[in-house]
Amino acid sequence: MIYLDNAATTFPKPQIVLKSVNEAVKFYGGNPGRSGHKLSLKTSQRIFSVRESTARFFHAQTENVIFTSNCTHSLNMAIKGAMQKGGHIILSQLEHNSVIRPIVALAKRGIIQYDIAPVYEGDIQQTIQSFASFIRKDTTAIVCTHASNVTGMIMPIEQLGQLCRQYGILFIVDAAQTAGVLPIDMQKMNIDILCTAGHKGLYGITGTGLMILNSNIVLDTLIEGGTGSVSIDVNQPDFLPDRYESGTINTVGILSVGAGISHIQKLTLERIYHHEFQLCLSLYEGFKQIPNIITYIHHFQKGQFVPIVLFNIEGKSSMEVVEQFSQRNWCLRGGLHCSPLIHQALGTADIGAVRVSPSIFSTQNEIYAFLKELKQIAKI
Amino acid sequence: MIYLDNAATTFPKPQIVLKSVNEAVKFYGGNPGRSGHKLSLKTSQRIFSVRESTARFFHAQTENVIFTSNCTHSLNMAIKGAMQKGGHIILSQLEHNSVIRPIVALAKRGIIQYDIAPVYEGDIQQTIQSFASFIRKDTTAIVCTHASNVTGMIMPIEQLGQLCRQYGILFIVDAAQTAGVLPIDMQKMNIDILCTAGHKGLYGITGTGLMILNSNIVLDTLIEGGTGSVSIDVNQPDFLPDRYESGTINTVGILSVGAGISHIQKLTLERIYHHEFQLCLSLYEGFKQIPNIITYIHHFQKGQFVPIVLFNIEGKSSMEVVEQFSQRNWCLRGGLHCSPLIHQALGTADIGAVRVSPSIFSTQNEIYAFLKELKQIAKI
Repeated sequence: MIYLDNAATTFPKPQIVLKSVNEAVKFYGGNPGRSGHKLSLKTSQRIFSVRESTARFFHAQTENVIFTSNCTHSLNMAIKGAMQKGGHIILSQLEHNSVIRPIVALAKRGIIQYDIAPVYEGDIQQTIQSFASFIRKDTTAIVCTHASNVTGMIMPIEQLGQLCRQYGILFIVDAAQTAGVLPIDMQKMNIDILCTAGHKGLYGITGTGLMILNSNIVLDTLIEGGTGSVSIDVNQPDFLPDRYESGTINTVGILSVGAGISHIQKLTLERIYHHEFQLCLSLYEGFKQIPNIITYIHHFQKGQFVPIVLFNIEGKSSMEVVEQFSQRNWCLRGGLHCSPLIHQALGTADIGAVRVSPSIFSTQNEIYAFLKELKQIAKI
Repeated sequence: MIYLDNAATTFPKPQIVLKSVNEAVKFYGGNPGRSGHKLSLKTSQRIFSVRESTARFFHAQTENVIFTSNCTHSLNMAIKGAMQKGGHIILSQLEHNSVIRPIVALAKRGIIQYDIAPVYEGDIQQTIQSFASFIRKDTTAIVCTHASNVTGMIMPIEQLGQLCRQYGILFIVDAAQTAGVLPIDMQKMNIDILCTAGHKGLYGITGTGLMILNSNIVLDTLIEGGTGSVSIDVNQPDFLPDRYESGTINTVGILSVGAGISHIQKLTLERIYHHEFQLCLSLYEGFKQIPNIITYIHHFQKGQFVPIVLFNIEGKSSMEVVEQFSQRNWCLRGGLHCSPLIHQALGTADIGAVRVSPSIFSTQNEIYAFLKELKQIAKI
């Protein structure tokens, strides 16, 4: 079985991640931050060390790293935390339902208003201008993906961050497709709230996510509960990370993310991105020899796209193609990838599109084999 | 090291749980419900099978089992899902901050009003009457723990369920301390929403929780996002479990809970409870020989308490005692256990209390050894 659905979740996981999961279950089974005993303290220390390395990885303060259960959880915390009292929010056309659906839900309850900014491949200025054109007096936040989970297009985050600073608007970034693939510097990029998954490019296990706040950001809480701190107070604590981490945290998952990040740091982001991008370039090269392949990107250039390749076969629905590949033991993803707006813009809202997303474990030989299969399937 | 802090999280985990975690990472790494390929489908099937066995275990419909990240997450979903549009809610004096803090947060935002019902050890009628006395015309829900995480007291859930049915009030039960220890039949007990952790009596890993709905319960959503279903729709789906499960779910954690439940079913709840309760009885017996031990329960009787023992040593704070035990490699929990109201009622809001909570892995010899240590520490 060959797995090329790493934009959904990476598989396999590095050995060091499996090892960390085993160790967590066997040796770090105390409830961190809850009891004063050695097993609890030992567990807390390991959690703290992952919080530290995660903070360094994204250029943030240690206590501002909040562990969540997935990127959707992080985005709901960020969006609702920022917008609970109302206002106007701008999102890009590339957003995932993890951004769209909470915003639509708030809007339906009459709490907020929103606008969707179109984006322009290869034209940063027009894209920035698109966001700027929607800014109103009551605009509270811009939420934007760092890279599309459908087309792979990388957004001009640094410039959008500057735009937000200029207007005093909160900048929320969904890094589900970029964390562990591209460098992310929250300071340099002016990101106020970074949301990402732990089980994609960071190579942790499922059930993990991150919300990382830049200094001085205070959000309303989405979830309140026991934090093991100031238990006598029936109000949620106001200090971090406790304010945003209620209930027993996911030691096993968090340690797996820590292991994933250390694996990435060993390999370096540069090498990971280069390797995966080259595989995607090979795919696009191969497509040229198959006449009935439809692609959606004009210039698949390094630095402008994450390692995601989107295509269709003329006359076939994406789900049909994915199913044919699945019968041959290939793992790809078809459909809309939970991102309806960009599929509407691409004209693929009906048939979806086939997405190929390699990981650091994918090989050039797999790509050649994939192209061979594709030629056969495209002929049928 | 001897671990007696199982009410915080069970440790160690059964071998079958460790095995399931390993298998999940190695063999069930597809994103369930997201892609059409074999690895995703194989993973979905395993998730579905845990959903089925969990539903059977609590007497619910399969699709009504919602996987969450911890019991706090479940309780926030339940409470806010029921109360988002306003109303009045009654909670017991035994509640954890996972219940108190979300309710206080909603009340502070002016959305709801609440009352706290005192409970009476050994007097079911007075306890029921206590809840009944707070019922108003606009009372939307009663939320009550199945058993106190501080005193171990079991609440008359079945009778409270009847009271709720009688008045047409939603009944939300926090089973964090009882799932995997006492039988829970959502139908018989008239429980509308059951919330519990996966990592305590169910022996799954941390990062796991359950919210189980009885039929016909529709809640507002706390979190919206990608579900892998009807992706073209920017509204959250209305069918279950998708409505309440957004973002990539925690395959590793969920399979661990499935393994934990199968372990429990093999041992039987009866044997687990009997074993753990006997250990607690031995503790209370032993306490009789130590003059300066303070206990808080009048009649520690089977069927009226879960296996939790609460005590203090005269003149010492609970944290000091826990620290002394910790130095001798014992794991206990002191402080307020995130449940301030009951500690206020017990008069221990200042010094807290020491909690001992055995698991199926605890032994009679450990209890004897514990009592021996306690005698020494109590003398100091």
